[in-house]
Amino acid sequence: MGALNEGHFNVELENGVNHLGGCIELGFEQEPETLAIEDAVKVLLQGLGEDVNREGLRKTPFRVAKALREGTRGYRQKVKDIVQGALFPEAGLESGIGHAGGVGGLVVVRDLDLFSYCESCLLPFQVKCHVGYVPSGQRVVGLSKLSRVADVFAKRLQEPQRLADEVCSALQLGIKPTGVAVVLQCLHIHFPNFESAFLDLNHQGWVKVLVTSGSGVFENEKADIWGDFLSLLKFRGIDVEKTHPRDAADKCWCPSQAIPKVGSSNSGMTLAVASILQSLGEDPSRNELLGTPTRFVKWLMNFKNSNLEMKLNGFVFDRMDALISNGNVSHCDEHIHSELNLSFWSQCEHHLLPFHGVVHIGCICTEAIDPIRKSFLQSIVHFHGFKLQVQERLTRQIAETASLLLGGDVMVVVEANHTCMISRGIEKFGSNTATVAVLGRFSTDPAARAKFFQSIPNSTTTGG
Amino acid sequence: MGALNEGHFNVELENGVNHLGGCIELGFEQEPETLAIEDAVKVLLQGLGEDVNREGLRKTPFRVAKALREGTRGYRQKVKDIVQGALFPEAGLESGIGHAGGVGGLVVVRDLDLFSYCESCLLPFQVKCHVGYVPSGQRVVGLSKLSRVADVFAKRLQEPQRLADEVCSALQLGIKPTGVAVVLQCLHIHFPNFESAFLDLNHQGWVKVLVTSGSGVFENEKADIWGDFLSLLKFRGIDVEKTHPRDAADKCWCPSQAIPKVGSSNSGMTLAVASILQSLGEDPSRNELLGTPTRFVKWLMNFKNSNLEMKLNGFVFDRMDALISNGNVSHCDEHIHSELNLSFWSQCEHHLLPFHGVVHIGCICTEAIDPIRKSFLQSIVHFHGFKLQVQERLTRQIAETASLLLGGDVMVVVEANHTCMISRGIEKFGSNTATVAVLGRFSTDPAARAKFFQSIPNSTTTGG
Repeated sequence: MGALNEGHFNVELENGVNHLGGCIELGFEQEPETLAIEDAVKVLLQGLGEDVNREGLRKTPFRVAKALREGTRGYRQKVKDIVQGALFPEAGLESGIGHAGGVGGLVVVRDLDLFSYCESCLLPFQVKCHVGYVPSGQRVVGLSKLSRVADVFAKRLQEPQRLADEVCSALQLGIKPTGVAVVLQCLHIHFPNFESAFLDLNHQGWVKVLVTSGSGVFENEKADIWGDFLSLLKFRGIDVEKTHPRDAADKCWCPSQAIPKVGSSNSGMTLAVASILQSLGEDPSRNELLGTPTRFVKWLMNFKNSNLEMKLNGFVFDRMDALISNGNVSHCDEHIHSELNLSFWSQCEHHLLPFHGVVHIGCICTEAIDPIRKSFLQSIVHFHGFKLQVQERLTRQIAETASLLLGGDVMVVVEANHTCMISRGIEKFGSNTATVAVLGRFSTDPAARAKFFQSIPNSTTTGG
Repeated sequence: MGALNEGHFNVELENGVNHLGGCIELGFEQEPETLAIEDAVKVLLQGLGEDVNREGLRKTPFRVAKALREGTRGYRQKVKDIVQGALFPEAGLESGIGHAGGVGGLVVVRDLDLFSYCESCLLPFQVKCHVGYVPSGQRVVGLSKLSRVADVFAKRLQEPQRLADEVCSALQLGIKPTGVAVVLQCLHIHFPNFESAFLDLNHQGWVKVLVTSGSGVFENEKADIWGDFLSLLKFRGIDVEKTHPRDAADKCWCPSQAIPKVGSSNSGMTLAVASILQSLGEDPSRNELLGTPTRFVKWLMNFKNSNLEMKLNGFVFDRMDALISNGNVSHCDEHIHSELNLSFWSQCEHHLLPFHGVVHIGCICTEAIDPIRKSFLQSIVHFHGFKLQVQERLTRQIAETASLLLGGDVMVVVEANHTCMISRGIEKFGSNTATVAVLGRFSTDPAARAKFFQSIPNSTTTGG
């Protein structure tokens, strides 16, 4: 008591007890690292042409600082503190030949959902983590510790192979078993650029990679014990051989690596990101982090506010006027027509984290949505997506712009996965958000809404 | 600083920041509530005939206290603190008729994984939570707050319908929208009793219930807006009408309610559980909690240590000796035979929380496993399951006992879902654990192991 005992503090953190009632808060908000990140985020917002005092953005610097520090808390955690006190004596076989229990009985924990931060671009990535070990010396470790140790290394700026290697060697050192095996399935969001989104309509939204790491009896990847471990994954539907060759992980997986470096025209923003790295306890001059500020700024500039208004006015509206004046929108013999699963890419203004998904647009009109209109609708979706957004506003804006093209009876459903719902403290990996806007007759006709809803396909099989 | 500011403290808790670096720990371990729960758990362990100083149990009282207090932290949280500062101005339609954005644009967050504690039996239950609301007054709430508010009420002793109602009215009060809708899919573990496990081989391991709650425009469950909300759930695969009639929730869903009350022979243990309820901030004389201590003790006594050894010695071994002396186990013309998906039910000795799943047993012998042997194997699994266990030991013990019946070449795979991996701080809802024991030739013959593994069916489609 009285002085900060880091070791003890970390144990508490890791065990998930949130200092129930017995804690004097020194003020996370006042810590210099928090304040430094907040300042840097303000620079980034200003670089995006945003008003940092706007209601939706006012607390964004604090939210980003909190999310980043929470998401990289692994730098302040120690594996020793986690494993200590969670090693239990466990007998092996009482007689006979073989392996079981605390002497050689393989233990595997599968399908641990984690997230980590990509050191190359600072975006969170999802990790499905599978860990196995072979106990020795008549002791086993508490099962949840495999997850907690993996999380210590996930909660840092990472790259999949290094993450796997660090989890593996930390467990090897901490438990001292006969061997440890780690398989990670990593999923990195892959946004198109603002420009390419309009051209590449079948853009694949994810980069997937599978990496493995082994120590002790698992060090040789041809060892028989790997066969046992992979069999135990296989009947959970994880087929290592089928998924991705191991070599894929040797090259950089982050899609932002492919972005050609443009001149350092945003040096203020770049410096701000470098200062964030420092505040998280990282060394911005570490080789893998050298290009990170530039890449993050490049990514962020996709969502520069002025991009949108300029292009929307100059490009879409003129053409839409022409289409609308064609007079295709009449009010006889009408049906509900729909355009489903238009992809969108956006950036949450509360956390500066991506959200993305699909947009379904319905209208009541005389003829089906032709290819030209469809392409316009996709453009409208992109135009409204590529800026700092909230899903509710995006839905409304798409509906309002689409109604210029499709007449006043329009309905829009947006289904999204929010990175801010899987990273940060919340970690609701399976969650998915839907928002609805109803214009004109859709707002007063439940049967019309129901008919449009029925045309939307089941979405549990789509997405990441 | 200096004094405990509860309001502020709670905001921090709820936002998932774990007091990074700026916190003086007053010692959760020393708090009277923690110590009281620890004492009560010691009484329970002694009532089970366990040695509380045994290595695996030494810290169990502390782990149980931590898990229970963490799992009921909702009593110490305030919705106001969560929602405050997360309400954002958001425009409605700029022109025209309809609903969108901050004025009437339906917002739904689907598939939030939570867990809660059953007030009837003190076991955790899983909740898949879907929340919707219709914004009004040009303001929306940060999406993650829907999850955080739901969690405040989930982290208490609950019953599904009350949980739904409390989440619903808290959101209605906190956001003041046009209406709130809540749908919960709840999953309660349903262990057989020690005795009935041997008779009911197709015991269903879960009780499922779906409950709904609505306020404002959702108050009338026939309202059209419910149709919109349920449509948005339907294309995530959630079909309210098909799943469970709403009435089902009116009756008590907890399987322990059906347990006939036996005399209060364990009054010390019952009092201990009542004292736990009090330490969690509950009133043990609240009507719904009156029978909880008795029910929890009744459940716990399924795992009394002496049950096992006595019955195993008196019942199984004698009969097995007879079988073995039949001389069926010879060493010519051998094949790998297997008995798959034998269910097991057990109790984690580290957290006093259930774990359960399936056991696969393989052997190298001359003839297939006959029905008598199969039934013995299931009995062996139950005998070893119904006590305080760890999965590694359970696997070894099953293998050792099974080898008496099947000869020395035996392999056992146990696949389990651990309640301690979904409740407590860890909340890894999809995780699943596998352990392996290999005896005799299985330990030296990778091809034999591989062949047995191949016979095990894909398990991603089974289980809860």
